Amino acid sequence: MSIVISVPVREKTEWWCQALRELMPEWDIHPIEDCPDPRAVEYCVVWRPETGCMKPFVNLKAIVSLGAGIDHVLADAELPEGVPIIRTVGTDLTQRMKEYVVLHALRHHRALPEIQAAQQRHQWHPVIVPPATSRRVGVMGLGNLGAVAAQALATLGFQTVGWSRSPKEIAGVTTYAGSEGFDAFLAGTEILVCLLPLTEATRGILNAETFSRLAPKGAVINAARGAHLVDDDLLTALDDGQLAGATLDVFHLEPLPAEHPFWDHPKITVTPHIASQIDAPTGSRIVAANIRAFAKTGTVADIADAARGY
Amino acid sequence: MSIVISVPVREKTEWWCQALRELMPEWDIHPIEDCPDPRAVEYCVVWRPETGCMKPFVNLKAIVSLGAGIDHVLADAELPEGVPIIRTVGTDLTQRMKEYVVLHALRHHRALPEIQAAQQRHQWHPVIVPPATSRRVGVMGLGNLGAVAAQALATLGFQTVGWSRSPKEIAGVTTYAGSEGFDAFLAGTEILVCLLPLTEATRGILNAETFSRLAPKGAVINAARGAHLVDDDLLTALDDGQLAGATLDVFHLEPLPAEHPFWDHPKITVTPHIASQIDAPTGSRIVAANIRAFAKTGTVADIADAARGY
Ligand SMILES: NC(=O)c1ccc[n+]([C@@H]2O[C@H](COP(=O)([O-])OP(=O)(O)OC[C@H]3O[C@@H](n4cnc5c(N)ncnc54)[C@H](OP(=O)(O)O)[C@@H]3O)[C@@H](O)[C@H]2O)c1
Ligand SMILES: NC(=O)c1ccc[n+]([C@@H]2O[C@H](COP(=O)([O-])OP(=O)(O)OC[C@H]3O[C@@H](n4cnc5c(N)ncnc54)[C@H](OP(=O)(O)O)[C@@H]3O)[C@@H](O)[C@H]2O)c1
Repeated sequence: MSIVISVPVREKTEWWCQALRELMPEWDIHPIEDCPDPRAVEYCVVWRPETGCMKPFVNLKAIVSLGAGIDHVLADAELPEGVPIIRTVGTDLTQRMKEYVVLHALRHHRALPEIQAAQQRHQWHPVIVPPATSRRVGVMGLGNLGAVAAQALATLGFQTVGWSRSPKEIAGVTTYAGSEGFDAFLAGTEILVCLLPLTEATRGILNAETFSRLAPKGAVINAARGAHLVDDDLLTALDDGQLAGATLDVFHLEPLPAEHPFWDHPKITVTPHIASQIDAPTGSRIVAANIRAFAKTGTVADIADAARGY
Repeated sequence: MSIVISVPVREKTEWWCQALRELMPEWDIHPIEDCPDPRAVEYCVVWRPETGCMKPFVNLKAIVSLGAGIDHVLADAELPEGVPIIRTVGTDLTQRMKEYVVLHALRHHRALPEIQAAQQRHQWHPVIVPPATSRRVGVMGLGNLGAVAAQALATLGFQTVGWSRSPKEIAGVTTYAGSEGFDAFLAGTEILVCLLPLTEATRGILNAETFSRLAPKGAVINAARGAHLVDDDLLTALDDGQLAGATLDVFHLEPLPAEHPFWDHPKITVTPHIASQIDAPTGSRIVAANIRAFAKTGTVADIADAARGY
């Protein structure tokens, strides 16, 4: 009856081990690299696990993703087959993402980057924009995070539209579904927010074709995964003036390499994957509760669908 | 039966004249400097009127302030006595102020200035802050603008407190009133928002004493009037590290002079009095409706109390 933890930063591994040991004293809990008996391992708690690292665990019952996405787990080409993947979600995560999306949508809406550039020149430069009630924001992905973000934008007054795979109903939000609904979702959208999971269907979805269908001088906020974005298409759209700005929290390679052109681009705001991270104390309680419930009943609400990719 | 318009920028005067002429074809409407017959003037529509400019209008029935505040009208030492002052408010104004307050509260809450400074150094610098649910924001002034801003902050998840002269009840907001409630309002507040009217009682209220009662490393957002703030006290509190940041939309002198230290201060965001301006088309409809209603009934809801100062 043991649990192993695999996260890229060793000190964080220690932190998670200790937190879970306190919450689950009946379990043996180890960093993955110190596991004394691979055959005893029933649960593997991971963030960006190394390829093949779970192969030795022949009695694995479930993999716990330390986050809402499971793309980082599915990226392991030697992932044990058929093992359920439990994602870690909760009000802490949705609260933080809601804050991030509202903050950055308002920044673009209110032309704050332009006003701050004027401040640097000591220039009084009043930019008066229309109220949010005549500004259209579109949220791609209406799951756990997207639905709450869309609702918060609508409550604040934005004309809010949303897009998902299957049809959804969200109060105050006009929704579109599937590839047949994509163009109507994009048409007229001025601020595009990506909260999709990364799957084969969504990789590279923030591309030249998508940007060309938005309202002119729009903005893009990517808080999902770096691989949703075609970096060069964004640079072209910004440099052509088709897009007015972008806020990016996630990147193909993280940390974003120091020489990447995004850092210095005057129209790009780079944030270091901080849109939403589960608070560690809250996160460990959710992980412990999920493992306990799964051990007892063989299932939990937050099991992802590996075939679907999210 | 005539109306005169006095706003500091001549081209804006023309704009307001035309907009009101279209809405009120039965009235003679002129820029104040082109008024053919001062005795015919019944209404004066003003923003920062020049001292004594309304003295010639001996038959004045009401003064219309092109904004929510009336301090700029009362500042006229030769203001005709006893003439009612009608302020211009509306959902357009509250919507815009709500956006501004939520944007800048979130910026401070999420440490965005620190993250953006790191971007300039190409530095991946993840700052993880607590969720808004454990962050206390305090709104000074719970009138037309403050009440709506406080409600929006509370809806977004912030622990929200508010302060006014007379006791108020706002769902989700803990309220304090009067000078006896001021210390309790400030204690623990991390982000302080000023939406007070400028009166003798509120002039200089954002001072060293007030800052010292906030939670350490707090932030101040002034979207009311420049004279609420003691500039030097803010600079001291920021430089001592007592305050972490400030966002200022209003200044003792506007436009803020190019040599003012606020422009270059790394912890100050300067915005050019754009927190909330009534959309001109919407504003002219409100002004026209208020003048018509006042002419008919002798009163309207938005008459300010000159003795009280707001
Ligand atoms: N930056 C950060 O700090 C951070 C933090 C947490 C998560 N994330 C990212 O955010 C993503 C979303 O999280 P979540 O918990 O909201 O995910 P979720 O609950 O699984 O929801 C995913 C949503 O995307 C929709 N979707 C999936 N594939 C689609 C497609 N091909 N076309 C259209 N819509 C599609 C789904 O549609 P259906 O509803 O029809 O299934 C669903 O509405 C995660 O996968 C992760 O990558 C980022
Ligand atoms: N930056 C911008 O773009 C912009 C735009 C519009 C307005 N403003 C400024 O915002 C100010 C507020 O506008 P508003 O329409 O919300 O004003 P309002 O409706 O008159 O409300 C004023 C609020 O302040 C409270 N208050 C007044 N004096 C006080 C005192 N001495 N102690 C404690 N509370 C006091 C009042 O208390 P009671 O409720 O008890 O009376 C009321 O809640 C305007 O006066 C203007 O200066 C700025």
